[in-house]
Amino acid sequence: MKPLLDTPFTRRFAVSHPVVLAPMDRISDGHLAAEVSRAGGFGIIGAGYGDLDWIDAAFDAAGDQRVGLGVITWSILKKPALVDRILDRNPAALFVSFGDAQPIVKAARERGIPTIWQVQRLDQAEQALKAGTDVLVAQGQEGGGHGMDRGLSALLPAVRDAAGKETIVLAAGGLADGRGLAAALMLGADGVMMGTRFWASVEANGSEKAKVALTKAHGDDTARSSVFDVARGLDWPSQFTGRVVQNAFSRPWLEDPAGLSGAAHKIQKTYEAADPDDYSVRALIAGESLDLVNTVQPAARIVETTVREAAALLARAPDFVIG
Amino acid sequence: MKPLLDTPFTRRFAVSHPVVLAPMDRISDGHLAAEVSRAGGFGIIGAGYGDLDWIDAAFDAAGDQRVGLGVITWSILKKPALVDRILDRNPAALFVSFGDAQPIVKAARERGIPTIWQVQRLDQAEQALKAGTDVLVAQGQEGGGHGMDRGLSALLPAVRDAAGKETIVLAAGGLADGRGLAAALMLGADGVMMGTRFWASVEANGSEKAKVALTKAHGDDTARSSVFDVARGLDWPSQFTGRVVQNAFSRPWLEDPAGLSGAAHKIQKTYEAADPDDYSVRALIAGESLDLVNTVQPAARIVETTVREAAALLARAPDFVIG
Ligand SMILES: Cc1cc2nc3c(=O)[nH]c(=O)nc-3n(C[C@H](O)[C@H](O)[C@H](O)COP(=O)(O)O)c2cc1C
Ligand SMILES: Cc1cc2nc3c(=O)[nH]c(=O)nc-3n(C[C@H](O)[C@H](O)[C@H](O)COP(=O)(O)O)c2cc1C
Repeated sequence: MKPLLDTPFTRRFAVSHPVVLAPMDRISDGHLAAEVSRAGGFGIIGAGYGDLDWIDAAFDAAGDQRVGLGVITWSILKKPALVDRILDRNPAALFVSFGDAQPIVKAARERGIPTIWQVQRLDQAEQALKAGTDVLVAQGQEGGGHGMDRGLSALLPAVRDAAGKETIVLAAGGLADGRGLAAALMLGADGVMMGTRFWASVEANGSEKAKVALTKAHGDDTARSSVFDVARGLDWPSQFTGRVVQNAFSRPWLEDPAGLSGAAHKIQKTYEAADPDDYSVRALIAGESLDLVNTVQPAARIVETTVREAAALLARAPDFVIG
Repeated sequence: MKPLLDTPFTRRFAVSHPVVLAPMDRISDGHLAAEVSRAGGFGIIGAGYGDLDWIDAAFDAAGDQRVGLGVITWSILKKPALVDRILDRNPAALFVSFGDAQPIVKAARERGIPTIWQVQRLDQAEQALKAGTDVLVAQGQEGGGHGMDRGLSALLPAVRDAAGKETIVLAAGGLADGRGLAAALMLGADGVMMGTRFWASVEANGSEKAKVALTKAHGDDTARSSVFDVARGLDWPSQFTGRVVQNAFSRPWLEDPAGLSGAAHKIQKTYEAADPDDYSVRALIAGESLDLVNTVQPAARIVETTVREAAALLARAPDFVIG
């Protein structure tokens, strides 16, 4: 599809569409990332907690397509050697989130690799700007997966004000269609990054059962908590919670977060014993945009319909204006 | 100022601008509500927990200006006689939030008084539509005061989809300028309702100290919790938390919500003993849009700059579109 929208992001990264695939841990593999890039968006591999063999395979799968790579900052800072190995693969951008990524950003910049820093609070945006990031992602708490408590509607314009006109800003969290993209541009973003919407795509690296479950679940069913981090034995800093479709297993813990650590062993045993596709126990990681996600679609179609719908809304926006 | 924007809300309520004053308990008094209506917006008196003398005085203060009145549903349902007394004042609309307002909406409809129902979740929107509300407000968790956990960016388009084309939808939560209004229209709203931005207005019913404190506080400083409800002895249903600028008094309780009720007596004594303008103890109720609120302004100017900025953004929106 021909480019329909022109923003500082599309220009700077020489892509057709201001739509970015969120680096969802393992779900955004080389195949999905390449598919989003091939469709004219910007694909980012989700390297999660950093397994080098998996990362190499993902880059190989992406083939000729230029894709970025996303890491979880607090996790990769424990394995500094990995940063160099990743940068050796020359990603189209290095994406960082969840922690002070200053040393990683420095290493990427030294090699001329652009950096994208996802922030959850305004004070983090100031930290990221000081470190010289090329792109900021303002991530609202309505998004799927890990995050914090600030909502997109107020965080995004505040991050834009902090960034000034030069730094590129993307919006993430709760956005799943052209309305979200058009709204994000009005709030000062140069494009959007979507996770949940691409999770329910044909090419996403996950089971058919999971994808169908996504199309049936609702935004009201999701909540942020640490229960699935405890269940999976993941050592997340406590300020970051995960937005997940809550189920019979997790719901009781929403009211009793303080009790989680004491029950960790029991929680982990129940979790591990469950079938990976049993979403009455297992985590179906997704955000509040689930209300807008009712069918599993090819990733390319998601990029295209999002852009087409946004372009139509923006073209008609003057109809609201009198005279 | 002449009308600049035309939406189903401005047409249906015959107002110049699609900007609504949130019914902030006592802060939105008759004077402030009238000022917003006089400026061409839609003012709503915040009757909070329902003191009839105060409500009568507020309507008297509003004089000739047509203003709405907002009540807290779970609270007024305990004093059903009050509903009739309020409807006797013939408000421009009856605004309800926080509970199943079906009987109140019915009473208003029987008198031909339009109803505005603020919802925090998609399932509540379905409830409100069934009760026949004229207007839905989708309230995101980023907003000041009481609310729930869903974010505006995903809740608003989902509420619009549920409402269909006929029911008017307003957006609230984290919106404080023309960017927020333009974005809300792109997401499917017919206008915005703002609280925090109007709290820092010249006419708001509160102390100068509080207003200056608002202009200095940041979105990152706010959080949702029940600590100030416990401190003020208010009996809120536990699903509704309040977004407030957190301070030395409240912050320890954010990590220990379960401990709140046991310490209620001590908390209340400390709270009552503090100077009403001592915001190291007292609640400064406000939302995440504080980053966008840096000066105390006349309410009319807030209405006008919001609309002017939104109209400019919407008029230029086609610039994003290629060809
Ligand atoms: C299934 C899933 C896995 C995610 N994994 C990661 C991750 O490994 N690293 C990361 O930075 N963000 C991760 N995220 C968050 C995304 O970066 C992004 O902020 C979020 O998906 C945006 O909100 P949305 O899901 O409403 O589109 C994940 C999100 C989802 C839905
Ligand atoms: C100081 C303050 C008091 C509020 N009091 C009420 C109230 O009494 N009743 C109500 O329905 N909403 C109340 N709200 C919430 C508003 O209705 C509205 O949802 C919110 O202000 C929108 O978000 P914003 O503050 O970011 O503009 C209050 C909000 C604030 C900031």
